Amino acid sequence: MSYGFLGRIIRVDLTSGSITIEKPGETFYRKYLGGKGLVAYYLLKELPGGVDPLGPDNKLVFATGVLTGVPAPALPRFVVGAKSPLTGGFGQSEAGGFWGPELKKAGYDAIIVEGCAEKPVYLYIKDDDIQIRDAQHLWGLETGQAQEAIRWELGDDKVRLAIIGTGGENLVRYACIINELKHANGRNGLGAVMGSKKLKAIVVRGSGNIPVAEPEKIPGIRKDIIAELKAYPLTQSLYELGTAGAVISLNAGGILPTRNFNYGELETAERISGEAMAETILKRREGCYACSIRCKRAVEVSSGEITVDPKYGGPEYETIASFGSLCQIDDLVLLAKAHELCNKYSIDTISTGCSIAFAMECYEKGLLTREDCDGLEVKFGNKDVILPLIDMIAQRRGIGDILAEGTHRAAKIIGRGAEDFALTVKRQELPMHDPRGKVAVGIGYALSETGADHMTAAHDPLFANKGIVLDTIFPLGITKPVGERDLTWEKIRAFMYLKIWWSFSDMAGICHFGPVPRGGISINNIIRLLKAVTGWDTSLWELMKAGERSINMARLFNLREGFTREDDILPKRLFTPLKKGRLKGVAIPEDEFRAIISLYYAMMGWDEEGVPGKGKLLELQLAEFLPMREEDDPDGSLLDDAELN
Amino acid sequence: MSYGFLGRIIRVDLTSGSITIEKPGETFYRKYLGGKGLVAYYLLKELPGGVDPLGPDNKLVFATGVLTGVPAPALPRFVVGAKSPLTGGFGQSEAGGFWGPELKKAGYDAIIVEGCAEKPVYLYIKDDDIQIRDAQHLWGLETGQAQEAIRWELGDDKVRLAIIGTGGENLVRYACIINELKHANGRNGLGAVMGSKKLKAIVVRGSGNIPVAEPEKIPGIRKDIIAELKAYPLTQSLYELGTAGAVISLNAGGILPTRNFNYGELETAERISGEAMAETILKRREGCYACSIRCKRAVEVSSGEITVDPKYGGPEYETIASFGSLCQIDDLVLLAKAHELCNKYSIDTISTGCSIAFAMECYEKGLLTREDCDGLEVKFGNKDVILPLIDMIAQRRGIGDILAEGTHRAAKIIGRGAEDFALTVKRQELPMHDPRGKVAVGIGYALSETGADHMTAAHDPLFANKGIVLDTIFPLGITKPVGERDLTWEKIRAFMYLKIWWSFSDMAGICHFGPVPRGGISINNIIRLLKAVTGWDTSLWELMKAGERSINMARLFNLREGFTREDDILPKRLFTPLKKGRLKGVAIPEDEFRAIISLYYAMMGWDEEGVPGKGKLLELQLAEFLPMREEDDPDGSLLDDAELN
Repeated sequence: MSYGFLGRIIRVDLTSGSITIEKPGETFYRKYLGGKGLVAYYLLKELPGGVDPLGPDNKLVFATGVLTGVPAPALPRFVVGAKSPLTGGFGQSEAGGFWGPELKKAGYDAIIVEGCAEKPVYLYIKDDDIQIRDAQHLWGLETGQAQEAIRWELGDDKVRLAIIGTGGENLVRYACIINELKHANGRNGLGAVMGSKKLKAIVVRGSGNIPVAEPEKIPGIRKDIIAELKAYPLTQSLYELGTAGAVISLNAGGILPTRNFNYGELETAERISGEAMAETILKRREGCYACSIRCKRAVEVSSGEITVDPKYGGPEYETIASFGSLCQIDDLVLLAKAHELCNKYSIDTISTGCSIAFAMECYEKGLLTREDCDGLEVKFGNKDVILPLIDMIAQRRGIGDILAEGTHRAAKIIGRGAEDFALTVKRQELPMHDPRGKVAVGIGYALSETGADHMTAAHDPLFANKGIVLDTIFPLGITKPVGERDLTWEKIRAFMYLKIWWSFSDMAGICHFGPVPRGGISINNIIRLLKAVTGWDTSLWELMKAGERSINMARLFNLREGFTREDDILPKRLFTPLKKGRLKGVAIPEDEFRAIISLYYAMMGWDEEGVPGKGKLLELQLAEFLPMREEDDPDGSLLDDAELN
Repeated sequence: MSYGFLGRIIRVDLTSGSITIEKPGETFYRKYLGGKGLVAYYLLKELPGGVDPLGPDNKLVFATGVLTGVPAPALPRFVVGAKSPLTGGFGQSEAGGFWGPELKKAGYDAIIVEGCAEKPVYLYIKDDDIQIRDAQHLWGLETGQAQEAIRWELGDDKVRLAIIGTGGENLVRYACIINELKHANGRNGLGAVMGSKKLKAIVVRGSGNIPVAEPEKIPGIRKDIIAELKAYPLTQSLYELGTAGAVISLNAGGILPTRNFNYGELETAERISGEAMAETILKRREGCYACSIRCKRAVEVSSGEITVDPKYGGPEYETIASFGSLCQIDDLVLLAKAHELCNKYSIDTISTGCSIAFAMECYEKGLLTREDCDGLEVKFGNKDVILPLIDMIAQRRGIGDILAEGTHRAAKIIGRGAEDFALTVKRQELPMHDPRGKVAVGIGYALSETGADHMTAAHDPLFANKGIVLDTIFPLGITKPVGERDLTWEKIRAFMYLKIWWSFSDMAGICHFGPVPRGGISINNIIRLLKAVTGWDTSLWELMKAGERSINMARLFNLREGFTREDDILPKRLFTPLKKGRLKGVAIPEDEFRAIISLYYAMMGWDEEGVPGKGKLLELQLAEFLPMREEDDPDGSLLDDAELN
């Protein structure tokens, strides 16, 4: 008997056209749960080291979690993974919306895409009917046009599509995957992997249900969860203002990334705030499958020089900050348009905005000329260049072709010190949270297996702001607040537990705006729900161990690709003082930061180089992945011990 | 607001006569819980390294757990701790009965006894009235006589006493502490520590209640727990046959320790079985405070050469095997008398029986003569020597004075290879479970902080017998059976989790016959109960981390006393084949055993020498105990980092 998952995984080889269904048993699901767990398992087990991320040997995994699609708030999410063309390491990105639940309704937990189609195709899944269909006529279309065409040709307006636009087709290294035109698996360039496989879309329609062990318990838990969300101020703000509600408070705190992380404040930030959006261009508040939070926006601009189509949703905080404050732009309509273009082209708004800000700093420092930039004056605050540059990146035209490589590679091409302006961790551009004001975010960036990412561990101000610790995370054993800028063992302990919890969440399909510490759903109610859905007699202990398991697997993947402890570090700029804003003069002390990273390794059961120890891997039942590299086992003793298995 | 604990700890200095009440806050209790946690905290923090266990600088801690005295089954227990005069390391022993709940009713969680009285005293606690009272007239009395005298002089038949007899007074290194004349803090010689302090008894009477956060929830949970116990076969057997129910099955399995661990089978085992007891000398079945299991016996022999008084209860399995099969004795009445004598004298039945079996083997091998043994023919099977030797040990007369040192020291005194017959781990005698048939018991012996002890981690046949794993431990993430004689990473992982769980149980006051894997109470219901009692929003995760915390503290204590990885090993005999019984010819492979101990270290986050790593200690919030030894921190870097605290 299986609950919460379907026990069926589609494996598609686009080279041969073969489609098979694999059926791992319940033990497998209890160990890996879904989402990040499945992604990490298949990538670690099946990819050879050193594979070309944009070649046919890379694999692309779409995986729902054990809770994905359960009719309660914050459970819409699915994970896409592959070796990342941006970072060269473990690639993963989550998205909400409706696609994940639809895949489960069709009867599948995950899809593994292998090989490379000769000509563009899309994958169509309707319950037991799975087809690889021609997409030559769709290649080159924006996401919205392609979606419309596919729905028309299938005669079904209700199919859900995970799709790429020209950014993905053109292998922009930070191309994303879009579903419903407004939900993005944004980071790590997984849209480029789709593009490299000539896979335009995965189109899903399901008529089944997600089996639940104790369905009679769900309505009660759902009610409790909704009550918890209602009682939590951040959830209310997410509804009222969307994620853009963060603009004002981060700016006031001096950590709104501005002018490519030189400043922490934009004087006219209120113009690009969630409040401004609500008062001007907001058309409606939207949400994901079964979710009561409704943090998504749809914005519309129907007249004037720039028009914005609400079907692409509306800009998140990250988008507003990366094209806005980071580039010193305060024109909300322009930012809404930038968002729309990125969704049309399927390119990540964070990396795109960061690439433009990087170009602006290079330009102002004389490393790029107007000639280099196709006649554009790529200066901070010049709003005329934003939309053209987005086009050029997606089409890989002119300077856009260089910027489409990501700032790390672009800096190497430009040379002459441009590296200092490429603010990345593991070659992925920094999200819009300046770690100088909340250092746990920086620890999260540095230790993220996917490169700089703000969704791998909780932001400390959200659980320890002004000395308050949320009681909803007490079950983790975090009952004492830690200061925002602390670099203490207590900070790294709290960070580690929250990172493990979030890693579990990425395995289960849980949105980070749902449970604590970012939302209002208590850990207890998530566990209650998971038990009712699966029928498993499980616990926070077992689920945290699952979270640890996926972190360790992703770490092993990166080690195999040659990452070292030197990749777990922030860009230099964050170790230098902010030049403007409330935190002017504040920097992260580099030595202390490096010490805290070492302490994290030690707490995780890793060695000084960040290599997971044999004891930890075996405790986590990862014997099959031990040893990973010959140099980890010079005397062969690990192999001997692995035979104990 | 505090629940489940009283927040008050008595500190008594017997040298000065001072009595103070300390009031640690809720944070302290949430971290250490009680029982083993408090014991480990005070011993590690307050004892200097190298203290004489029988000198005035040793401290004796009596500690209840956060659940002790809650009116539900399996929650009667309290822990006594001190530096052990037997092992020279971390000393701890648990007991059930009624004393622990009574201490809490009097308003205290724990008692710390310091110093040494000039003349014999006892401590009398009646709610807020705490007195150090003269006990010169009681010194030299058997436990039963002394208890009667104290009750008479206090005019209160209902005071509960934790008391010693002449074994404790005479500093027998394995003297125990007895409460209600039949419940023993049996191991580690803590009765000798009482004796060294000239403390005859701690006498308690309380009129208060144990505060419970959500009292309305307790009856429902209690009902569920009782139902779980009823449904579980082992619980039924414990009621019907007592722990002696194990005799027949262990004998059939070839692991009934016989002839000082030379054999695994006694041909006439049925004569000393629980069944035989039930049919002959059993007077009534008894139990501990609020417990429905009723595993205790009271036996009576009122006529014939030997009479046995039922007020001392009746022999447990351990007692029957250590005086019985281990010495090749099959006379149940004699064994019952041996039990009674040990309880009168307050000496541990396991170590006493083992000491006699050791002497028998020495005698048969010619290392002891009849002259050495005061004219006794100390041979296996000679039942005439058992009772005299018990007397001689308790009174430290003749050969008894040597055997009262424990077999490790006795062997050194006897010399000429006697060490081979002294079967100890960390100088404590082996309990009556032969690890050659269930290797996890041996791992438990080797890794126990208190020396060989069968109550520090679950016995594998009880959770994995014949390929079955109890679903009640699924929340630990152990869902797959491991074979009884396996030495695999899966075995050590399951062992580690169960050891952590049992360590938590020793902090909470839970009897190991209650919850899984030895009893029928599910982990879930223990967590439910703990939450209802304390009002804490806690979880199995947090509580397992507490369990880890106490293991690590006890480990640090032993490291400070000079223990090394060479002390985490079984006596040689267990690495040689059994000579008789179903497992004839079976030995534990020593190399594999050593490898598995190393793997345990690694899984625990300890180094190859078994020293807890900085990362693990800080994760467990044990910064104040880091570093423990100068050689752990040669370059001072740990101290630097500890300043992060």
